[in-house]
Parts: sequence; C-alpha cells; structure tokens
Amino acid sequence: MTVLLCDGTGAAASLWLHRIRWRAMNKLKDVLQLRVRYSETDQMGTFYNSRALEWFECGRTELMRNRLRMSYVELEEKGVFLPLVEAHLEFQGGARYDDLLRITSTVELQGRARLRFDVEINRNETGSPVVRGYTIHAFTDTQGKPIRPPEWFVTLMGTA
Amino acid sequence: MTVLLCDGTGAAASLWLHRIRWRAMNKLKDVLQLRVRYSETDQMGTFYNSRALEWFECGRTELMRNRLRMSYVELEEKGVFLPLVEAHLEFQGGARYDDLLRITSTVELQGRARLRFDVEINRNETGSPVVRGYTIHAFTDTQGKPIRPPEWFVTLMGTA
Amino acid sequence: MTVLLCDGTGAAASLWLHRIRWRAMNKLKDVLQLRVRYSETDQMGTFYNSRALEWFECGRTELMRNRLRMSYVELEEKGVFLPLVEAHLEFQGGARYDDLLRITSTVELQGRARLRFDVEINRNETGSPVVRGYTIHAFTDTQGKPIRPPEWFVTLMGTA
Amino acid sequence: MTVLLCDGTGAAASLWLHRIRWRAMNKLKDVLQLRVRYSETDQMGTFYNSRALEWFECGRTELMRNRLRMSYVELEEKGVFLPLVEAHLEFQGGARYDDLLRITSTVELQGRARLRFDVEINRNETGSPVVRGYTIHAFTDTQGKPIRPPEWFVTLMGTA
Repeated sequence: MTVLLCDGTGAAASLWLHRIRWRAMNKLKDVLQLRVRYSETDQMGTFYNSRALEWFECGRTELMRNRLRMSYVELEEKGVFLPLVEAHLEFQGGARYDDLLRITSTVELQGRARLRFDVEINRNETGSPVVRGYTIHAFTDTQGKPIRPPEWFVTLMGTA
Repeated sequence: MTVLLCDGTGAAASLWLHRIRWRAMNKLKDVLQLRVRYSETDQMGTFYNSRALEWFECGRTELMRNRLRMSYVELEEKGVFLPLVEAHLEFQGGARYDDLLRITSTVELQGRARLRFDVEINRNETGSPVVRGYTIHAFTDTQGKPIRPPEWFVTLMGTA
Repeated sequence: MTVLLCDGTGAAASLWLHRIRWRAMNKLKDVLQLRVRYSETDQMGTFYNSRALEWFECGRTELMRNRLRMSYVELEEKGVFLPLVEAHLEFQGGARYDDLLRITSTVELQGRARLRFDVEINRNETGSPVVRGYTIHAFTDTQGKPIRPPEWFVTLMGTA
Repeated sequence: MTVLLCDGTGAAASLWLHRIRWRAMNKLKDVLQLRVRYSETDQMGTFYNSRALEWFECGRTELMRNRLRMSYVELEEKGVFLPLVEAHLEFQGGARYDDLLRITSTVELQGRARLRFDVEINRNETGSPVVRGYTIHAFTDTQGKPIRPPEWFVTLMGTA
C-alpha cells in the first residue's frame, strides 16, 4: 500500500486511501500467547534479556502467517529476506518460568525499504507489562543485497 | 564518582574533576575477543540477532572484572543486581561462524540510579562493524527493589 | 505405579497394582505441538542440536501440567527440584524453521530416586522422526541436596 | 589410527601403525577454557542443561583448529558437513555464572563413516567434574547426503 510508503497527496484518492489506512491500522496486528520456558530463565529468577528478541520473532512469524497470509518461510522461498537492522527493547517487569505471555505485534512499512514491527509483551493473566520495543528490518535478496520491497509484498501489506 | 553523576560545578575542584573525568573517559573501557559459535548462527548464515545481547553481556562481565576490579559475581554477592531496563541494537554487518569478534565496551553512571554500557562489536580481522548499541541497567537489591548505587560502587567507578 | 517405587509384595494387592500399572502405562503420556523458531535454526539450515533438549523440557512441562495436575512451578514451590543427571539424544532427521513438531513425552519413576522422561519428536505433518531420547532427573531440595521423591509425588504418579 | 581407517593388515606396517596410534591417542586431544555466561544460567542457579551441548561444540571447534590444522569452517568450505547423529550427557556437578570451565575433547573415527568426540568439562579451579559425554557425527555433503569421510580427512586424522 503506497499510503504506508509515501504521503499519498493525490486528492481524489484520499477517501480510498483513508479506508485502506484504517484497515491497515486495524488489521495488521496479531496476538500470540506463549509460555516462558525454563531454558529462558536466568539466575535472577526471571527471563534472560535476549529471549525477548526471540519472542519478538515468534510474534512476527505468527503475524505474517495470520495477517499477511504469507508465512516468512514462503517469503524466503520467494527470495526475499528480512534481516534485522535495528532493535529497541524496554524491560518493564519480570516474567517467570511458565508464565503465559501475550505478545501483541503490529507491522508497517517504514520509508521506502524498511519493515517495522512494534511489539508489546504482557503477562496474560494480569496484563502487567513485561517488555515493549520494536525491530526494523531491511529487505534483501538471497545474496543479502538490499532490495526494495517487491510490489506484490506492498500490495499484500495494503490489502491485508 | 560524583563527577559522573552531577555537574561538579565547584570551581576549586575543577582541575581534579577534570583529571578524574579524563581517567574515567579513558579507562572505563574494555576490549574482549570472542568467536562466533555455531550455535549462534541461523539459517541466514550469519549470527541470530539475539546473540548480540549475549555478547554485550560478555563485554560487561569482562569490563567489570578488568576495569572495576569487581566482578559481577562479587557485586551480586554484595546484594546488588543490575537488571536490564533498556537496550538498543544496530546491526551493521554480518559475522559468520568462527569469526573472531572484538567487543569494545564502555560504562558510565547515568542520572542517579542507572548504569549505561555502550558497546561496539567489530570483526577483529577486518575491523568491519557488526553491531553497536547500548544497555541501561537499574540497581536493585536481592528482592528486586530499585536502589541507589551504593556509595562504594560510585567510588569504584570514579577511581577505576 | 507403586510397583515402580516399593516392592509391592502384598499378594492381595496384585490385581489393583496391575490396574494401576496399566493406567500409568497408558496415561502418563502427553503430546505437545510446537513450531521451530528461527532462533533455533543454524547455518546448516535445520535446527541446532541443543534446541532438542529445550524442546524436551517443553514436553516435560506440559506432561506434568496435563497428566500429573501439578505444574513444575508448583513442584519447585513445594521445595522439590528435578535437575537433569543424564540425557541421551538421537538425531533422526531434519526439521526446519516453522515446521510444526509433535513432541510425545512419557514419564516414569526409575529406581528409588530418579524420574525418567522418554521423548519422541516428529514432524507433525509427515510424522517423520526428528529426535528421540530421554532425560533422567534427580530429586533435590531447595539447597540442591538429593532427596527421595516425596510420598505425595509418588502417589501422584501412581494415580495420575 | 590407520587401524580405524583402513584395514592395515600388512605385517611390515605394524610398527608404524603403532607409532601413529600412539600419536593419535596422545595428540588428538584439546583443552579449551571458557567462562559460564549469565545467559547460560537458569533459575536453579547453575547452567541450563542444553548449554553443555553448545560447550561441546566449542571444544570440537578448537580441537579441529588446533589438532587437525583444519578449522570446521574450512571443512564446510570443502563441502563436508558433520551433523550430529547422537549425543550423550552426564551432569556431574554444578557450575555457576562466571566459573572458568576446562573442556577436554578428544576425537576419533568410529566405524566407517562416523566421527566421535568425547568431552569432559571440569571447573578449572577445583577440577571438580561438571559434565561428561560424547557426540557422534555423520559425514554429509552440501545437500545433506551421507558420505564416507574423504581420504584426505582420514589422512589428516591419522597424521595429526
């Protein structure tokens, strides 16, 4: 969806753009539940910090499957890779072994050649915040060379 | 070292402060070399993103041992914990299995109750950048309650 | 089940023992499905070998919750820990990122003070074998000192 | 060593074989030191069990570099892969964050198409045992098809 990529200044298109933007803002979100594994704890008794990035990945994977209707596996099979270029994490509260987490992920195209996922992780039972952050991804081909997001992917994002 | 914590506006103290600041800026840095493990790679052929946070931790551990002369183990034994509250990572270039990495870490007190580590990871052979970022840590007691950094720790930072 | 724990020499009890053994053999099994995470792959394109031990743990956790009706969290809260003393793994076939795995775990008491989990991991779609193995666990108290399995735990195993 | 590789039935060769075997038994061993990372601990306060397999890998990597004079990277570049087919681990004692470990690895060809590494991990300071075990590896080509160990590899093993 070009509206997510450029400003979409065309006047005639604005209502349609508005509708699409609304759809994107409302739909490209996915919620995943998963439990903290024992292997993810550390001696402080909560989860070790780097696990959050692995949970972010689980959130991305399910969002793509459920909302884009194209799994990340299929994307890679089409020769499109999404390596991480930036990540930010804020650790808000502990989560312990076997706690059920609720991972809320949203995705949007950012600028011309980036994909951004925002993630919030809460304890499912109490809703108390655990981690929030984002990851920014480049688009590359099989050789790791940066590419523009393929048109079909942009369309997929806009109509999802 | 208060100079790292507040502004240190006192006139008489300024030369001494300057010397300490210089020392801090020049010395509270440590360089660690480590190799990328096979277990740290992913199917994209480089390292999986969350490993960077684990390497940051290795950098912190050695900086504390080598520069503060107090290992993180000893810190925890004294009842002081440094849980992560924020992390930021920029992925600049690939690193592959068995590549020797050079991890450069610096530390400083931030505000009244935070410790900040800045980290740069480069490939040792070529110097090409791999990841850079920072982690910000709170000080807590054994129960996880936030505390001010103990005075002896501040002194340690200032005279290291 | 008591047959696994004590001698069960009483003649009158034998039919009852038989029934319990049958129940144990048929019920102390649990099946868990989970997907291979990207973070669990390595540059060979399948999963990195040590992840299997983490999946074994997920199998144990769910078996205890679903079959023993006592989560491992509750067990630790009662002061009983189950550290691993032995593990064996046979890697039978690859599994790739996002593959859905079926983890079949069974549990039994072994000797006087050991708990043994046998695990088989298959690809869910094709049934093709991925890993099989077992883990053997000691019982310890909070301080890590070996203990006999508490009587209530043995009962739990026998009546599950 | 050749006895493991070819039939070595020639009588005249026996002294030479003996010498090579002695060399192999004495030299295809390597010792690596590494520290337990915080990320490798779990809430029980020691290291999480699957980390041992990652440490085994570190031992293999260094043994190959130091004793075979061919790193595993070079081996893969030549199109030879060594996927794990079996692993066994005995957990003998705890090791804590920042403990310096001593990993002693030996390697031998097993049968016609397997490579076996035996590993012992001890705490460096006290020598107390932590884990011991072995891993058995197949030889495969780039596509993952099982192959016999290349002749140059067998020679490398015999003369190392």
